[in-house]
Amino acid sequence: MKKPRICTIGSHSALNILRGAMDEGFSTLLICRKGTSSFYASFGICNEIIEVNHFNEIFNLQEQIADSIIIPHGSFVAYYDLDRLLNEFDVPIFGNKNMLTWESDRYKKSELMRAAGLRIPKEFEKPEDVDRPVIVKHFGAHGGKGFYIAMDSEELIEKIESRPGEAERPKIIQELIRGTNIYPSFFHSVIRNRTEFFGVDRRYESDVDSSLNVYLSEDPTFTIVGNYPLVLRESLAVKVQKEGEQFIDATKRLVPPGLNGAFCLEMCVDKNLNIFTFEFSGRIVAGTNFFIPHSPYSYIMWGEQMSMGRRIAREIRDAFDVERIDEICF
Amino acid sequence: MKKPRICTIGSHSALNILRGAMDEGFSTLLICRKGTSSFYASFGICNEIIEVNHFNEIFNLQEQIADSIIIPHGSFVAYYDLDRLLNEFDVPIFGNKNMLTWESDRYKKSELMRAAGLRIPKEFEKPEDVDRPVIVKHFGAHGGKGFYIAMDSEELIEKIESRPGEAERPKIIQELIRGTNIYPSFFHSVIRNRTEFFGVDRRYESDVDSSLNVYLSEDPTFTIVGNYPLVLRESLAVKVQKEGEQFIDATKRLVPPGLNGAFCLEMCVDKNLNIFTFEFSGRIVAGTNFFIPHSPYSYIMWGEQMSMGRRIAREIRDAFDVERIDEICF
Amino acid sequence: MKKPRICTIGSHSALNILRGAMDEGFSTLLICRKGTSSFYASFGICNEIIEVNHFNEIFNLQEQIADSIIIPHGSFVAYYDLDRLLNEFDVPIFGNKNMLTWESDRYKKSELMRAAGLRIPKEFEKPEDVDRPVIVKHFGAHGGKGFYIAMDSEELIEKIESRPGEAERPKIIQELIRGTNIYPSFFHSVIRNRTEFFGVDRRYESDVDSSLNVYLSEDPTFTIVGNYPLVLRESLAVKVQKEGEQFIDATKRLVPPGLNGAFCLEMCVDKNLNIFTFEFSGRIVAGTNFFIPHSPYSYIMWGEQMSMGRRIAREIRDAFDVERIDEICF
Repeated sequence: MKKPRICTIGSHSALNILRGAMDEGFSTLLICRKGTSSFYASFGICNEIIEVNHFNEIFNLQEQIADSIIIPHGSFVAYYDLDRLLNEFDVPIFGNKNMLTWESDRYKKSELMRAAGLRIPKEFEKPEDVDRPVIVKHFGAHGGKGFYIAMDSEELIEKIESRPGEAERPKIIQELIRGTNIYPSFFHSVIRNRTEFFGVDRRYESDVDSSLNVYLSEDPTFTIVGNYPLVLRESLAVKVQKEGEQFIDATKRLVPPGLNGAFCLEMCVDKNLNIFTFEFSGRIVAGTNFFIPHSPYSYIMWGEQMSMGRRIAREIRDAFDVERIDEICF
Repeated sequence: MKKPRICTIGSHSALNILRGAMDEGFSTLLICRKGTSSFYASFGICNEIIEVNHFNEIFNLQEQIADSIIIPHGSFVAYYDLDRLLNEFDVPIFGNKNMLTWESDRYKKSELMRAAGLRIPKEFEKPEDVDRPVIVKHFGAHGGKGFYIAMDSEELIEKIESRPGEAERPKIIQELIRGTNIYPSFFHSVIRNRTEFFGVDRRYESDVDSSLNVYLSEDPTFTIVGNYPLVLRESLAVKVQKEGEQFIDATKRLVPPGLNGAFCLEMCVDKNLNIFTFEFSGRIVAGTNFFIPHSPYSYIMWGEQMSMGRRIAREIRDAFDVERIDEICF
Repeated sequence: MKKPRICTIGSHSALNILRGAMDEGFSTLLICRKGTSSFYASFGICNEIIEVNHFNEIFNLQEQIADSIIIPHGSFVAYYDLDRLLNEFDVPIFGNKNMLTWESDRYKKSELMRAAGLRIPKEFEKPEDVDRPVIVKHFGAHGGKGFYIAMDSEELIEKIESRPGEAERPKIIQELIRGTNIYPSFFHSVIRNRTEFFGVDRRYESDVDSSLNVYLSEDPTFTIVGNYPLVLRESLAVKVQKEGEQFIDATKRLVPPGLNGAFCLEMCVDKNLNIFTFEFSGRIVAGTNFFIPHSPYSYIMWGEQMSMGRRIAREIRDAFDVERIDEICF
């Protein structure tokens, strides 16, 4: 087998993925939308760029990119129809095929978090059941846009009624935990048989994270604009790492052979240091983009420059060297 | 021509500039105020330090520093009289001479941003015209001190009346956008003929960014204390980079031969990801000081340690090697 | 004398300390609680790990670890009885023995800060004396848990009465400064005879730093969850460095031979850039954990990867080379 190229689509964490691939000695390929190629080209990390009008054209490019391994990221799952991806796409994709199915279903996601023994916020089926502050998140809502909060059932019902089509829209009504959010990222390596603690960020959202939000906003909004880097209180990092390992164990049982590669647990820590996991992502998250060329934790572990993009490429290189690529791709 | 020394004045981003110059193999010279030289000396990045009582003494030091290129920064424009700088100073200064004139005039600044096709917040000439929340910024106000907000015309008029001399003081009354602020920095290279995306920060201001601001402050204040590093949502970075390039194009048309070197667009992103540019800086900003020895983006682009200070020095080295120093200094 | 091993206990900044020791060529030893060794082992920075049920078992391990120098950190002072540490423990500890005594007494801490000429917030002996907003901190309170604020005397008395046992609990009632907090870290080197500016962070606390705190919380809480990295306005850094040096001078006079190694001044900066120091830590703080492998400032100074953990190890290596270990340990 020839050494594969590393390919991703131009959005989300493509810079991270391609720089990392290049640092590990891979040839790189980017599929990006017209109008964005000059941005990506300016960084000098793409051996080849294919411009498309819509990311869906990837299905017609399969022959051309057959020598690649695709690294999926957040935008990847947002842009592609799952069925088509699973049935009409033959280029190897890094990760576990079945995780995609589980992740496309918010109820299955909650089931997986519960199976991992994680404490999750209460979820309400009907607005009238709500007995505490909640946050409403739409299924497949991208980047936090349109999320809203309500302090009680009455306010929630009022907000739903004031938004056209909102009552019917698939959504999750989730208890709002009083605490501060943390987004720890991990890498589960099949080749090294371990779950690595990678780094922690928190989101920077518009307009809830405006310095002036309290003066200006009747109702905070949660559109993701970027990410802040963080470091965790060390005793908390120990607990968070344990929960990361529990999560991997749960995926091994429920979604065999289990998740491999990058993942993120989206958590809220209350004043008593209780940890609530309100969401997870089964692949590289944009919060790791700050940690290029390394995070504090990845430097401690590796003693070298190890971004999440590079960690993924390192895993592929390791697997390639021992002819186990088929265990980490689908 | 002999290889020049790199010189700056001790404030703002001097550490950044001199460390970068040293990393590029330049000899360095710092002009600093009495009482601050031990701070700068402790970092071991100054080949020579000249202590002055007031930065204005630089005009008398011209012979002594004639072998240098001066790197201006934020404090530079604050401390010097523009006319004197343009007419009585012969040591080469990095940048475009005419940009200084444009930047000294807030109306010309707005004109330049508009010419670049950037969306800018509405500006009001008279307090009574105000029909939405605004922020008031004084001309030449340094580091955010004294800025204030008002929710409507009535509150604004009241605040102006309660501040002695405020009515006559030159100021800008600017629409306050509901959103979160980002401060992307760029480097426009004349030698490489490209505009590079460098990194993003946001300010840390007193007391609006106090965790307890909402409990303590009747009226938030905006004195800059420092900066947080950020990473941008990648799809937003693509747009921001485009606006950076548009801005450079506008300076080429209106302020030929155009801006060269570091610059920053000061932006606010609303919940719909609309980008408003409320201010710009035509040189290195202090927000880049975090990104030493590199930012995530500069590492992606260069694959080596590239701070903004070093990027400036690299440009000078590049220009020196091809004998084009006169194109990047005045 | 044989080159010592570097030893610490598994919590707070152990990763930082051990990675730094390893980078300086030391053999490392970790004492950690059962259940946490897999976390620490996963980073590959411990040559030996000793598991204990309680950190107090260190007193029985003295023979086994006699070839080590212990690096104390925040958790260290929290877990050990001071008298026992000073009288029943013979393994060398990095730092100044007498600082531990001074630090265990909140009144002596204030005395030291005042002796250094630092401006400190007003402290009130009795709740009824309070004439402005205050924050209440318990003696030995760990990680901010249980701290609370009150806007005036009446609110404070009410809060004390509503908390069982609070009236008798030893606590400090401290003026709450309107401003933003900064936590600058320094390293005072006995061997190089200088106080080095290392880096700046701010804390990330639950739930006061929740984006939604204002909507959810009747009363903010201050449990430390982690830290954000910051960079300071350069003119402010000059002042802060001066105060760091004044602080070292004060420790030389009051706690001879003075503090050596890492320390942190916990400060609040108001809108007029006045600096108030509300607390200090005489050893490595967790905020430095972000700055691995370096902070912006440490890179400027060293031109190499220099974390606080590594800086400590470098000092020990320097002292070992010139046979002055006894001056930096007790």
